[in-house]
Amino acid sequence: MFKKAKQAALQAAMLSLETRNRALLMVANAIEGNSQKIFKANHKDLLAAEKKVDDAVFQRLKLDENKMRAMVAGIRDVAKLADPINHKLFVRQLDEDLTLFKISCPIGVLGVIFEARPDVIAQISALAIKSANAVILKGGRESKNTNETVLEIINTALEKLDQFPPNFLQQVFSREDAAKMLGSKELDLIIPRGGKELVEFVQNNTKTPVLGHADGICHIFADASADFEMLKNIVIDSKTQYPAACNSVETLLLHKDFAAAPELLESLRNAGIKLVEKPKSWSFEYGGKTLAYRVVDGLDAAIEHINTYGSGHTDCIVTNDAPNAEVFMDKVDSAGVFTNVSTRFSDGFRYGFGAEVGISTGKIHARGPVGLDGLTIYKYKLIGAGQIVKDYADGIKKFHHKEMK
Amino acid sequence: MFKKAKQAALQAAMLSLETRNRALLMVANAIEGNSQKIFKANHKDLLAAEKKVDDAVFQRLKLDENKMRAMVAGIRDVAKLADPINHKLFVRQLDEDLTLFKISCPIGVLGVIFEARPDVIAQISALAIKSANAVILKGGRESKNTNETVLEIINTALEKLDQFPPNFLQQVFSREDAAKMLGSKELDLIIPRGGKELVEFVQNNTKTPVLGHADGICHIFADASADFEMLKNIVIDSKTQYPAACNSVETLLLHKDFAAAPELLESLRNAGIKLVEKPKSWSFEYGGKTLAYRVVDGLDAAIEHINTYGSGHTDCIVTNDAPNAEVFMDKVDSAGVFTNVSTRFSDGFRYGFGAEVGISTGKIHARGPVGLDGLTIYKYKLIGAGQIVKDYADGIKKFHHKEMK
Repeated sequence: MFKKAKQAALQAAMLSLETRNRALLMVANAIEGNSQKIFKANHKDLLAAEKKVDDAVFQRLKLDENKMRAMVAGIRDVAKLADPINHKLFVRQLDEDLTLFKISCPIGVLGVIFEARPDVIAQISALAIKSANAVILKGGRESKNTNETVLEIINTALEKLDQFPPNFLQQVFSREDAAKMLGSKELDLIIPRGGKELVEFVQNNTKTPVLGHADGICHIFADASADFEMLKNIVIDSKTQYPAACNSVETLLLHKDFAAAPELLESLRNAGIKLVEKPKSWSFEYGGKTLAYRVVDGLDAAIEHINTYGSGHTDCIVTNDAPNAEVFMDKVDSAGVFTNVSTRFSDGFRYGFGAEVGISTGKIHARGPVGLDGLTIYKYKLIGAGQIVKDYADGIKKFHHKEMK
Repeated sequence: MFKKAKQAALQAAMLSLETRNRALLMVANAIEGNSQKIFKANHKDLLAAEKKVDDAVFQRLKLDENKMRAMVAGIRDVAKLADPINHKLFVRQLDEDLTLFKISCPIGVLGVIFEARPDVIAQISALAIKSANAVILKGGRESKNTNETVLEIINTALEKLDQFPPNFLQQVFSREDAAKMLGSKELDLIIPRGGKELVEFVQNNTKTPVLGHADGICHIFADASADFEMLKNIVIDSKTQYPAACNSVETLLLHKDFAAAPELLESLRNAGIKLVEKPKSWSFEYGGKTLAYRVVDGLDAAIEHINTYGSGHTDCIVTNDAPNAEVFMDKVDSAGVFTNVSTRFSDGFRYGFGAEVGISTGKIHARGPVGLDGLTIYKYKLIGAGQIVKDYADGIKKFHHKEMK
């Protein structure tokens, strides 16, 4: 199965943009046309899951008309995005008739491990088709019927396109197969989408690169000059607009000279936020409406707190002092550093990436929300006319390194 | 020590290009001015190593006037290269007064593990200073005196620049400290430079991302239409110009219709190459003048052989058939795919990167020869005017995603 995926990836890398976009539209149509079949499979999963899983899991598992419409629209949106592969990142003439091309290309085979969210299959499949990366999917067992049905519909649609390689999108269900994914040499990148436990389990049990994040410990620093109303709105939005999201704020840092701190805390309480002054840990992700807060001596102390306890996800300063904002954004070592704006904006769709495979807090390859660009790497193509290195080593010839683009 | 390195990295990220370039020139001058001191330390290492190490190791350990000149010139060259950090990779207005900047920045703390080659310290230090990445170095124990002396001279020069953070370049010597490097959470990237055993040991013993390559199994495919003289020269250069290099060729694949195969093999033998028709393994790196060869049915068979047995380093087709060259370069899944040119060109200096920290056969982050660009990542800076996500989720406001650059 892994070897087949690799074969499919190598073939898919040759597909034209037109073919890949056509495939996306065919997949969107097929899902739309078979929505009743998908709802039926989902209903089966829901019946089996009822009373066994908590409400949040049940809600994520459940497909409704809205989610279905969003799924189909999402696939069509990906078809509209620019091609992430076959870009000439540079063209450099090393010498006469010796030209180096740096060309973006797919990574190869992705392993995506996710919890019981059937809409994720369509989203990942769309990004995979567009970026020509083969995928092995492993979804939560509660959504097995839905996942099987959705992927079968997608693959039946792809089969109609002669050029599309078989085994481009495959799926496993058992824990044993998931363990094999983690050990496979054919996988180039593993993307776990889910809670901290899932991500950490994957990180600790594979030698393959992992893209994602275990924690979202986001901060807002209220500088002395922060505008009261703006600060209040930003903190409330960052905490309450979707408290379970990874880009929700967990800690509010208050400059000791921010005068309106008591009124601010009062307003936050009124908005339903539970404030904690002495949390057991400054690195805890509440996931609910709890917010830790701390009074700090100033900008440097805030930056140090964030770089010490944060998770490198998204951190914000609210200030009227432009130089302070600049220092904050330079010194805070996070994927997203924001000024005067809710931490909840840290998201592929809001950034204009169209869709995302996840948000990375790593500092290698891709960081922050990861869209199509994060699913590419590059290769160097060198075209010569028989040149040998000996001539350059002996000084008979010299490189001239002329940029052509 | 790791925490100090992280502090230094955060501070170094704020240094201007001018300061970093001034630091490089001061370091170059200091090494030049203290060359006798360095030779003395190196002499001590050479005395201790004599008769204990083989000749290749001894030659790498030995610093002479030529290597010293190259070291100093290399540092000055890095000062001339373009700044790899603080680039605006894009600027996108998400909405009025809400602008997203994607800015290149240093990775953080690098761990570089290398064998007894004292010139590597200067090269890595120069790349680290330019890219504002702090480094912890671990060199081969045979070069301890030289390494200590060189780094002391570099750090004394850096101390004269007030702005330069202390502990930016640190060094460890013992195996225990190296083991701590592999387990440190403060290290963002580990770069092993050395033989297959060293690289594989590092890969198997750390959770930190590793950049490098264990194998260099490079191929040349002689297409049916290959020009005899060109092919002969390219194979001889790729195998003999520096047989121990990772970009030397290990396997020659001959199209069954390449008519002059017997004459070619004869020429290769005359050039001192030992030919092997039935090697024990097609994935063996000889490191010497041995070359495996195989007759294949055609282009597809050659590509399949390479994608099966190769290491994704550098592979070349020699052909007069342009469409075949194109298919080869698209389908071979290697960092370097060459047409009509020696595999030995796969190198940071020859590619025009000025210097390299190594060559990556991974497909994440950086691939092929890795120069300054491979030592950077990016952060997203978002500057707003109090925007909250609720307004966009509720449909009161809409993103317009306008590219500004």
